[in-house]
Amino acid sequence: MENNKKLRIGLIGTGFMARTHSNGYNRVKNFFPELEFSPVLKAVCSRNGEKVKAFAEQWGYESTETDWRAVVARDDIDAVDICTPNDMHAEIAIAAAEAGKMVLCEKPLARTLAEAKQMVDAIEKAGVKNTVWYNYRRVPAVTLAKQIVDSGKLGRIFHYRANFLQDWTINASLPQGGAATWRLDADAAGSGVTGDLLAHCIDTAMWLNGGIKDVSAVTETFIKERVHQSTGKMQKVSIDDACAFFCHFDNGSLGLFESTRYARGHKALYTFEINGENASIRWDLHDLNRLEYFDNADDSIVKGWSSIHVTDGDQPYMDKWWVPGLSIGYEHTFVHQVADFLKSLERGGVCSPNFREALETQKVCQAVLESASAGSWKNTDVEWRKKQETEKEAMLSEEV
Amino acid sequence: MENNKKLRIGLIGTGFMARTHSNGYNRVKNFFPELEFSPVLKAVCSRNGEKVKAFAEQWGYESTETDWRAVVARDDIDAVDICTPNDMHAEIAIAAAEAGKMVLCEKPLARTLAEAKQMVDAIEKAGVKNTVWYNYRRVPAVTLAKQIVDSGKLGRIFHYRANFLQDWTINASLPQGGAATWRLDADAAGSGVTGDLLAHCIDTAMWLNGGIKDVSAVTETFIKERVHQSTGKMQKVSIDDACAFFCHFDNGSLGLFESTRYARGHKALYTFEINGENASIRWDLHDLNRLEYFDNADDSIVKGWSSIHVTDGDQPYMDKWWVPGLSIGYEHTFVHQVADFLKSLERGGVCSPNFREALETQKVCQAVLESASAGSWKNTDVEWRKKQETEKEAMLSEEV
Amino acid sequence: MENNKKLRIGLIGTGFMARTHSNGYNRVKNFFPELEFSPVLKAVCSRNGEKVKAFAEQWGYESTETDWRAVVARDDIDAVDICTPNDMHAEIAIAAAEAGKMVLCEKPLARTLAEAKQMVDAIEKAGVKNTVWYNYRRVPAVTLAKQIVDSGKLGRIFHYRANFLQDWTINASLPQGGAATWRLDADAAGSGVTGDLLAHCIDTAMWLNGGIKDVSAVTETFIKERVHQSTGKMQKVSIDDACAFFCHFDNGSLGLFESTRYARGHKALYTFEINGENASIRWDLHDLNRLEYFDNADDSIVKGWSSIHVTDGDQPYMDKWWVPGLSIGYEHTFVHQVADFLKSLERGGVCSPNFREALETQKVCQAVLESASAGSWKNTDVEWRKKQETEKEAMLSEEV
Amino acid sequence: MENNKKLRIGLIGTGFMARTHSNGYNRVKNFFPELEFSPVLKAVCSRNGEKVKAFAEQWGYESTETDWRAVVARDDIDAVDICTPNDMHAEIAIAAAEAGKMVLCEKPLARTLAEAKQMVDAIEKAGVKNTVWYNYRRVPAVTLAKQIVDSGKLGRIFHYRANFLQDWTINASLPQGGAATWRLDADAAGSGVTGDLLAHCIDTAMWLNGGIKDVSAVTETFIKERVHQSTGKMQKVSIDDACAFFCHFDNGSLGLFESTRYARGHKALYTFEINGENASIRWDLHDLNRLEYFDNADDSIVKGWSSIHVTDGDQPYMDKWWVPGLSIGYEHTFVHQVADFLKSLERGGVCSPNFREALETQKVCQAVLESASAGSWKNTDVEWRKKQETEKEAMLSEEV
Repeated sequence: MENNKKLRIGLIGTGFMARTHSNGYNRVKNFFPELEFSPVLKAVCSRNGEKVKAFAEQWGYESTETDWRAVVARDDIDAVDICTPNDMHAEIAIAAAEAGKMVLCEKPLARTLAEAKQMVDAIEKAGVKNTVWYNYRRVPAVTLAKQIVDSGKLGRIFHYRANFLQDWTINASLPQGGAATWRLDADAAGSGVTGDLLAHCIDTAMWLNGGIKDVSAVTETFIKERVHQSTGKMQKVSIDDACAFFCHFDNGSLGLFESTRYARGHKALYTFEINGENASIRWDLHDLNRLEYFDNADDSIVKGWSSIHVTDGDQPYMDKWWVPGLSIGYEHTFVHQVADFLKSLERGGVCSPNFREALETQKVCQAVLESASAGSWKNTDVEWRKKQETEKEAMLSEEV
Repeated sequence: MENNKKLRIGLIGTGFMARTHSNGYNRVKNFFPELEFSPVLKAVCSRNGEKVKAFAEQWGYESTETDWRAVVARDDIDAVDICTPNDMHAEIAIAAAEAGKMVLCEKPLARTLAEAKQMVDAIEKAGVKNTVWYNYRRVPAVTLAKQIVDSGKLGRIFHYRANFLQDWTINASLPQGGAATWRLDADAAGSGVTGDLLAHCIDTAMWLNGGIKDVSAVTETFIKERVHQSTGKMQKVSIDDACAFFCHFDNGSLGLFESTRYARGHKALYTFEINGENASIRWDLHDLNRLEYFDNADDSIVKGWSSIHVTDGDQPYMDKWWVPGLSIGYEHTFVHQVADFLKSLERGGVCSPNFREALETQKVCQAVLESASAGSWKNTDVEWRKKQETEKEAMLSEEV
Repeated sequence: MENNKKLRIGLIGTGFMARTHSNGYNRVKNFFPELEFSPVLKAVCSRNGEKVKAFAEQWGYESTETDWRAVVARDDIDAVDICTPNDMHAEIAIAAAEAGKMVLCEKPLARTLAEAKQMVDAIEKAGVKNTVWYNYRRVPAVTLAKQIVDSGKLGRIFHYRANFLQDWTINASLPQGGAATWRLDADAAGSGVTGDLLAHCIDTAMWLNGGIKDVSAVTETFIKERVHQSTGKMQKVSIDDACAFFCHFDNGSLGLFESTRYARGHKALYTFEINGENASIRWDLHDLNRLEYFDNADDSIVKGWSSIHVTDGDQPYMDKWWVPGLSIGYEHTFVHQVADFLKSLERGGVCSPNFREALETQKVCQAVLESASAGSWKNTDVEWRKKQETEKEAMLSEEV
Repeated sequence: MENNKKLRIGLIGTGFMARTHSNGYNRVKNFFPELEFSPVLKAVCSRNGEKVKAFAEQWGYESTETDWRAVVARDDIDAVDICTPNDMHAEIAIAAAEAGKMVLCEKPLARTLAEAKQMVDAIEKAGVKNTVWYNYRRVPAVTLAKQIVDSGKLGRIFHYRANFLQDWTINASLPQGGAATWRLDADAAGSGVTGDLLAHCIDTAMWLNGGIKDVSAVTETFIKERVHQSTGKMQKVSIDDACAFFCHFDNGSLGLFESTRYARGHKALYTFEINGENASIRWDLHDLNRLEYFDNADDSIVKGWSSIHVTDGDQPYMDKWWVPGLSIGYEHTFVHQVADFLKSLERGGVCSPNFREALETQKVCQAVLESASAGSWKNTDVEWRKKQETEKEAMLSEEV
């Protein structure tokens, strides 16, 4: 870390996530001016020199690189932010850690559990600050859900269910591989919806409801062959188009998860619901400012599902934005994660999820894929409880 | 009244409302078996002899008549139920009262305030039991709203707003007059949406929120000429296609009402909302089993609009039906009104709204039409408070 | 069958379902007067003589019995309607069939697949009319879903998902066994949510989306011991409190089903959704008059989920009821099933689902329970396609 | 205008609106990089020197001023952005125009019609670019509504209704006057909800549905006295707490508007609905990414209200943000208005609404207040049609 409380960022990648992270860095001090640290957009890197220059100009990066190794090697960079396709995560993260850089890695942590373990080893050996961009934890309504869960209001938990439904790959003429559709290519992505979408659901689930012990899964690939961008030829599709699994949580509750890119009419319908003995909670990304809450303690004749428009100043993060009733959106979750990362520099603590915590999600993903392949239950070896007991989270919302 | 605790009904009319009332009589003892009195479907009457026979067979009436005077004259009939177009209400009701019959009159009470007053005079002079079918009071969710209001939970009331939006008369080729479209003919109906739809809104409003002091209204007739059924010729349309008004309630709150048959996409969207200092309520006929409730006393971070699915046994009337979660529908409101009428025979009290109370609604309707015509505010001369203090309502739901 | 086109009913049972069926018989000719056949409530039977007399009086049965064998033996009864706990279904149905009676059996058909097979054998040997009360097919919105599916608008189907969530058994002091809580006793019920709730979901699913080939399931019993009504002692709970399963349909789509009685805040949340290549459908029992529909063929900038209020005269069954916008409720599904049964007498055809079709649902339930027990996939041996090709359904809605 | 295509901003004010505008300037080139012009945050001004310095640092202004006249006088400023309480709008705008500055003025344009006219005169005499921040036009769902209306799909319009409901002033101990509550002081604000909230509704309404000819209004002040910040004494409250009005539009449709700050449970519930002969539209600020649309041309059995999640790349402005399904929020409307203002510099045209158009809204507000005071209808003298025919709007969304 430099003097002057600057966090000098080197960003690898110029795609969708590169935009959301850059926006996070650019906005954070307008809305969290009390933070001591400030991000500085030192460099952005992409193999395509023209594209990276345009990106740098658009987002205000001071310089560009076309080889990520150059970013890792630069002395004027404190933190490497990895926004590449998944097949580059491990190599870059390990090199960055070894070079003493902080690492902020886009999710999922890696393509495979083996890669993820190497990354955690490297990060922990280097002792550098790190975080993984499971951004949905920092939707204010989701953070509020966490506060309600932590308050104990739900009582014994019986059920957790989550869905992440999309419809963008129904068209059979969509290719696999390449810049726009690498998510359809298992070599680049590791898996299909499991790593892309269910990983989000699993991260939120374990954060809210604790460790997942074992899983039983099914996967499906509806369109068996697609043209590959790199070869121009029809090739077997290697990813999972859809995946569903049940699981047991450490707390005895039953989990049910489903994800697909073939749910016509749903663009990004990430929903979750928790049913406790005394209260239930549900949330939906399409209406991300709302949390629905059922409290069985209410007077019986007026008991119902309450639709909470999470835009008040005493709700998580919302004192930073506008006034009650005025919505924020998807991108704000990244601003919140940047803010919490800066806070962790200032006051210590983990900007959760860190690599170690993201490894637990990776374990579940791996078990899900193996279970689907074997047609039987799989243990996950998740060690959630231990982790939770020993680490302190840095979240600005927790101070409210 | 006969011995044996029978209520022998003579029904005048065979249209839509004749069906809803008949269904009410037929079902009531299946669901309210504890009532001492039972309805007996003694006679149904319509000028069309063939139609009336078919109706009698379908609904189980013991006999038919083609002249309503014959019904009024029959000794074996205790109560006359008036389901004719509005232009016959006064004449039949007055004759029935003079013959010592109980009278159950479809709403609105009359075409005009003058007619309504004569009816009330006749009914009160005769001292016969009477009720007017403002059925929406007996939607369980609406009755629950009344219970919440009466509990004082809302505090000082600031606003009351109600809409009744339909779209069935947009087609310019729809005629006026005749059996199916008499509601488009002011001679038969008295007025357009004011007497047909706003009358419902006004009845509910005064029941929930007290008397309406004065009104300022606007009306509109979008389609100026329609063929008249009786003449086959284009004639000026004499009804109001749409009507809106503001008002002051006796309790100081501001009211806003709107009704139309030209709101494309809305079939029967009757909604109301009450905003109090401490809590608010809203309801919607399209989802009639739900009541939405906002309680400002809730813990601030989980405060929201609660969607109450009013199907539990401790909610109004619902112990009579199925199990929690299972909806009832529109027709059940008439079953409830029959049940409450039977209860009023058994235990005394008014099966509200009675003619006197419906007269107050008529006063508001009249003031609305006059205000729209004059373009200025009008007093209503409503005497709500006095009435409420002196009469006891018979509602089975109140015993819960 | 008697002369005179009467269907003389002998009803066994006086519980919740006895009420819904009795209401169906009582209402049907008011709303479907064109039907040639009429139900006659000849006898109702229950071991409790006092209770059965009260029930008979409330619902209009001509006589009572306290031994179901007496009902089966009576010459003046054409059809036996079985509303007992599940443990009596097989014995009564087989005896009634052997006595040449038509049989209308409450769902699920039986406790076990073995029982169900014996029932189908008996019914088919006797050649008597039969139906099983999977009533949700006849919610107008669900029937509309079937019409949309049959129209081919959805294209290739990718996903089917259904939930049936309740919360009524969370209280640990609720006993098992006995009149009110026999559903918690596997001896009486056969299983827990699988036969009670998932059976409904499976019936609808196969009707809409074809046969289920294989399943992988999980079950959970959250409260392990409850007092048994008959012994007054704490005993191991033998039913499944919750059950989830995935499946493959014959058409290649992936199914996901979940049911529980521990989802706090949900009274009877039966929902299903179908995702096709070109369109999707979803439905929710709590708002049973609505169907949600997404049509990908819509102009892209106005594409969305359409909320269809299924109350128009050209929508299934709705020409029989009120006017557009006015809701019907849960009980109407039974009226519709009675109407379709009467129609099947008049015009031939099956009042679906019949015993044979309900057997297919039983096969899936059995496979689900076995899969959960084994922790592995199970084939169902469902023979859906064959059946569908050979039988003609009698549904009044299909003539619209 | 300077060379270099910079738009050098001088912002007056540091309150809520100063934040939303500053955010708009800061973000616009990240999301609209193709625009030739860039905003430069040259100076921010507030009487409170400490506060203005903190604001400048937070938002990146190059310099600060404590006297707005200094801003107007500076040569290095191209445009003055007015974010003061309403009582300063006229004086600053006129001075800025006279100094040849472009003017971007927060809504409402002025406290009174007289002030507004002077402002328009000054602006038009100076011939400087100008805009008024009626930001809700640039919610993508609202802009989509405009596109649908302009397409003619609605046919003849019958009804327009809008509400803006808040609940933030129910507490009687809230003072009037001062930095936080100047909106409760008519001297500072001009009026209460009429200028604050209904002005938004009126601007949108005339944009979507054309000129408003005449109005009939009612206002209410529920809390008659509040402590004034400046004196510390109880004083008569001079603003309207609530206001409702009907109106006739030039196109013959009927309008109904309501606004209040006493609708418990509603934080910022701005809703509007248009009912046309062939289709209807409605929108709600609490779910601002959605537009609801009813198209009567749909096949009758699947006709319903479509909930359009306006987040696709072919919907207004949304190609600039994320991917389908991912929401944006309130603040984005200001980014859009800045983008459209920059576009108007580059390609000509009006960044609507300009002062002239905002004057028409002011005329309606004035007529509303006068009508409420007189208890009778008032003409508005709005000249909407003429304006619309002669000016070209610059909206980036229109090029889609």
